Amino acid sequence: MKKFMNAADTMVAESVEGFVRAHEAVVMFGSQRKCVRRRELTPGKVAVISGGGAGHEPMHIGFVGRGMLDAACIGHIFTSPTPSQIISAIDETDTGAGCLLIVKNYDGDVMNFEMAMEMVADRHKIEMVVVSDDVETARSGEDRGRRGVAGTLVIEKIIGAAAEQGMSLAQLKALGDRLNGKVRSMGVALSGVTVPQTERATFALGPEEMELGVGIHGEAGHSREPFCTSDVIVEKLCTTIAADIAIPSGAKALLFVNGLGSTPPAELYIAYNAARNFMEQRDIRVERSLVGTYVTSLDMQGLSVTLALLTDEEIALWDQPVATAALQWGSSV
Amino acid sequence: MKKFMNAADTMVAESVEGFVRAHEAVVMFGSQRKCVRRRELTPGKVAVISGGGAGHEPMHIGFVGRGMLDAACIGHIFTSPTPSQIISAIDETDTGAGCLLIVKNYDGDVMNFEMAMEMVADRHKIEMVVVSDDVETARSGEDRGRRGVAGTLVIEKIIGAAAEQGMSLAQLKALGDRLNGKVRSMGVALSGVTVPQTERATFALGPEEMELGVGIHGEAGHSREPFCTSDVIVEKLCTTIAADIAIPSGAKALLFVNGLGSTPPAELYIAYNAARNFMEQRDIRVERSLVGTYVTSLDMQGLSVTLALLTDEEIALWDQPVATAALQWGSSV
Repeated sequence: MKKFMNAADTMVAESVEGFVRAHEAVVMFGSQRKCVRRRELTPGKVAVISGGGAGHEPMHIGFVGRGMLDAACIGHIFTSPTPSQIISAIDETDTGAGCLLIVKNYDGDVMNFEMAMEMVADRHKIEMVVVSDDVETARSGEDRGRRGVAGTLVIEKIIGAAAEQGMSLAQLKALGDRLNGKVRSMGVALSGVTVPQTERATFALGPEEMELGVGIHGEAGHSREPFCTSDVIVEKLCTTIAADIAIPSGAKALLFVNGLGSTPPAELYIAYNAARNFMEQRDIRVERSLVGTYVTSLDMQGLSVTLALLTDEEIALWDQPVATAALQWGSSV
Repeated sequence: MKKFMNAADTMVAESVEGFVRAHEAVVMFGSQRKCVRRRELTPGKVAVISGGGAGHEPMHIGFVGRGMLDAACIGHIFTSPTPSQIISAIDETDTGAGCLLIVKNYDGDVMNFEMAMEMVADRHKIEMVVVSDDVETARSGEDRGRRGVAGTLVIEKIIGAAAEQGMSLAQLKALGDRLNGKVRSMGVALSGVTVPQTERATFALGPEEMELGVGIHGEAGHSREPFCTSDVIVEKLCTTIAADIAIPSGAKALLFVNGLGSTPPAELYIAYNAARNFMEQRDIRVERSLVGTYVTSLDMQGLSVTLALLTDEEIALWDQPVATAALQWGSSV
């Protein structure tokens, strides 16, 4: 296992410290390093907080900043942050308008965020949006077991912009839930991931195999298939996504191709090209695009495709200025 | 060799097509797809053009847009663009104030850019800045053989901002040459790269080996050493960089940790943390930072460290708005 690290026990702390130092104009540690937060809060704005296990960088710490999150809490690798961390983030960023928690749908995350929410219910107004965009885990027919993956970025960006514009906590909660019904993702891996603590791959693939339907925690996916061309792989992902959601003719969408950790940019653009073709052939109007490594699974070689059906108003929120480490446009730091 | 691609012969064209479609608000193909250019030119501004082989994405096409490049030409993988491509870019973007070519120091690139320059000398005022920031290839004691690597990004950003502010061609040429004297980079690889055409790795490393001093074309480096911790690796890079350039006490700098293709963001931040410590221990004031995958060598697992000593004026140019696919701040698309 060759990684740029010093020790399995210190790698998360060192990585987050490097992140905060590199982006010190935008973010700072919260008290006792329990969260990473914006340097400057906007009084009267609903605080937007997210978090999850480490190993998905730049998510979520890379989304902290004006126009997106107020704070993010990071757990150990692939492990939820603690209620104590989440409470600290809430206490430090809620300026009185309340707090929206955006949580990916995993038992551990949901449990800890809910626990934090209950523990501070006497002093904070809080709502929670649970993101569950992974079509792979929808096979059971109920949303409950569906994981939150790369689509989380889209929801955090749009919610963040709406909060910046002064939307109330109740409205933000409704917007988040509505968005979650319109965002779908699916991933593929050409390799498993090596978890530093164990030095073992979470699953092994032969030189001619790929794993369809992977999540972002090194879980095996839905099916192992023979490795094939990018166009065929992307068509499989897009077909499953398109079958999972009703798409009105002429629907407007954001198309997001996300690298899972070690996929080079040039390959992500090859995949994007195929995904774009797929969508346009089905009369989906790709109004906005994002291509890059934003929601990772350590060093997994793989990618995911996310389709978000958006209204004009939601697209306008996507376009609003954002000044974070990972997403930045229309705004000076 | 598992990559997201369809065929070795089409991968560059498909990747660039995906790129242009994903960033259609910012860039477009030039005539006959000979270059990627800004959608909107600024009349009276010096045109800034770069280019090089494919396989380094997002460089250079990801740097095309307001505040940085006017156009970029892409050759085959690790191969210079042709004079015909470069001439096309010049003809399409020079609005009368002349054209600055920013070229990485490789024989093929320099030759083709010089040839293009001579062939249009009757109708365009042109200057060329050759970037040679790689300390590894400086061992011969002369700058001539030194390669251009990740530091190219820093020079293109600052030159692009100065051009946007109306700086003349002669001034930009002088600024570029001055910057090149103050930017130093060095890379390390934990794996070789697999060139799609040959399906072979350019060099092979054992599970406990690393290659110090690698460039961005899959060349082997200066020395093969036992793999070690990130802190020790980064100290080796920084020590070589610091020995290569006179650094006044209290010097202000931009520190850039660049992923070479398949290094995940979390690991880049661990390396940044060590590089930042190194610089601060030597009284170098890290005023600006960049961490990410910007200048790649296909899917190489590795990274480079770039140190750029900058004046306050140069830092102010770095901070100026930029709206490209890969770098974007302070500016709306």
